[in-house]
Amino acid sequence: MSSRAVIALGGNALGNDAAEQQERIKHAAPSLVELIDQGYEIIVSHGNGPQVGMINLAFSEARKQNSRIPDMDLPECTAMSQGYIGYHLQKGIQKELNDRGMPWTVTSVVTQMVVDPEDSAFKNPTKPIGAFYTEEEAEKLSAQNPGVIYQEDSGRGWRQMVASPKPVDIVEKNSIKNLLDNDFVVIACGGGGIPVVKKGEGEYEGIQAVIDKDHASAKLAELVDAEYLFILTAVDRVMLDFGKPNQRAVDRMTVAEAEKYCSEGHFAAGSMLPKVRAAIDFAKSKKGRKAIIASLEKAPEAIRGESGTLITDEPLS
Amino acid sequence: MSSRAVIALGGNALGNDAAEQQERIKHAAPSLVELIDQGYEIIVSHGNGPQVGMINLAFSEARKQNSRIPDMDLPECTAMSQGYIGYHLQKGIQKELNDRGMPWTVTSVVTQMVVDPEDSAFKNPTKPIGAFYTEEEAEKLSAQNPGVIYQEDSGRGWRQMVASPKPVDIVEKNSIKNLLDNDFVVIACGGGGIPVVKKGEGEYEGIQAVIDKDHASAKLAELVDAEYLFILTAVDRVMLDFGKPNQRAVDRMTVAEAEKYCSEGHFAAGSMLPKVRAAIDFAKSKKGRKAIIASLEKAPEAIRGESGTLITDEPLS
Repeated sequence: MSSRAVIALGGNALGNDAAEQQERIKHAAPSLVELIDQGYEIIVSHGNGPQVGMINLAFSEARKQNSRIPDMDLPECTAMSQGYIGYHLQKGIQKELNDRGMPWTVTSVVTQMVVDPEDSAFKNPTKPIGAFYTEEEAEKLSAQNPGVIYQEDSGRGWRQMVASPKPVDIVEKNSIKNLLDNDFVVIACGGGGIPVVKKGEGEYEGIQAVIDKDHASAKLAELVDAEYLFILTAVDRVMLDFGKPNQRAVDRMTVAEAEKYCSEGHFAAGSMLPKVRAAIDFAKSKKGRKAIIASLEKAPEAIRGESGTLITDEPLS
Repeated sequence: MSSRAVIALGGNALGNDAAEQQERIKHAAPSLVELIDQGYEIIVSHGNGPQVGMINLAFSEARKQNSRIPDMDLPECTAMSQGYIGYHLQKGIQKELNDRGMPWTVTSVVTQMVVDPEDSAFKNPTKPIGAFYTEEEAEKLSAQNPGVIYQEDSGRGWRQMVASPKPVDIVEKNSIKNLLDNDFVVIACGGGGIPVVKKGEGEYEGIQAVIDKDHASAKLAELVDAEYLFILTAVDRVMLDFGKPNQRAVDRMTVAEAEKYCSEGHFAAGSMLPKVRAAIDFAKSKKGRKAIIASLEKAPEAIRGESGTLITDEPLS
């Protein structure tokens, strides 16, 4: 059996409309397929920050002027973004595979991610989404739906804030594993997965939340027993003292070192910190597991140890 | 191996918003799962007329007042509708399976359907979609995009008209077959599939079109070598002379009889006619294949011959 690698692509890397998204994927596909060429079985997960925001915004803006447009909650918007991004990803990766004469088929699976309704994130929603409102509009909306929290967002207006709970389990894990076992290239857990809570055996219900795609990818990598988790981003390597005169790139860190750097405040909260934490979670989850944070362009070099930051407790080979 | 049955659900049966859709699926799930209980391996396909219209309309309405919202073409809107409907279907069917202690897992696959760019439907677009415009607005839009056709729709305003070409091939057929072979319940070809044209080996490009879900389901049933195609609708049986004093229900028709009834004008163009034609196509495609047009509620009775209209050239057993 070849080694399994989960590859997490950032939603920001996918552009702001359908044409941009297809163009970005065209450029990303060679790096992804190169990993298959090196003998890895790949599973692609992806973020959806800009895309789920766009879908949610389209529905809330359209509803302002046309009452026939229904409200669309985050689980449904995330499901839509999985279709939208999955379609372009499977099309783009399939073309690259065929161009190289590689026989695999790419498939996107609509994925639900279970979260804990008692997760403390629900008490402190931190992710702004959807349309901007005036303070008065926000107060009115909040009065109509007392559970919904609005906050001022960076001087641009008031927006709904949603929770970002930790991923716990993937409802469709068996389908994903089955496709992998049969040599399909799978796209799963788009946007961190559709957020659901478990109501009973086999019974799930959507919940207003967005799940961090790096943590979702770490959970996916754990559940499919991957050897590698690739978190692909805009920079080649994790940096310490980023932006300061003494900034320096890290080639490799142990879990203990990575935890120390996190607690020392080296990584920005909405940016590198969740990636490093997801990498730590995966590297710690079982002996032999390795996480790599690298740039999309240099993913093939990163797997050979020539770029990226490796997070693992394994001895150097 | 158990017999395979493709079940085509109408998009109209799924309601107009997320809450309605979940409620409708809750009521539909027992009929679908009953078929599994009777020994069939099921693949669920579904329409998306109201849903893809809603998504397309949300983007075009939102864009009128917020230029940050991008245009969203039909392939992308259909992909979104597959995520949106697939999520609710897989959740609803999964719950019903678990309630009955049945061990199967449900999975939605994002599906691209290949159409022929030379299909005559592209010369005569017949399906109205998206926002309503005034005649002046429609003329202006048409001048900006000369390929796009606008027509007056039933006195309600001017709308974009799109083609409904015939389905030719399913890009993800191998993934669908693999999941079926491994006992998964698969949801595929949502909204007739994302319309694409083949540009080269393994290379596809989205095209502005909507594919009839009954014809898409017949193609799906053919490609997965199903024995049954169920087309579920609002009436129990196909009617001859519908709405006239001598109207009568049909229990069973041969392909030749069905073709004769079609040519005699018994069936309405946007309604029963495409269902009967899809049933004919499937029943003709291989010896032993049977199509059934029935109501959702009576699908389990229909498979026992106690309801529905059977279209087949097989002798009565």
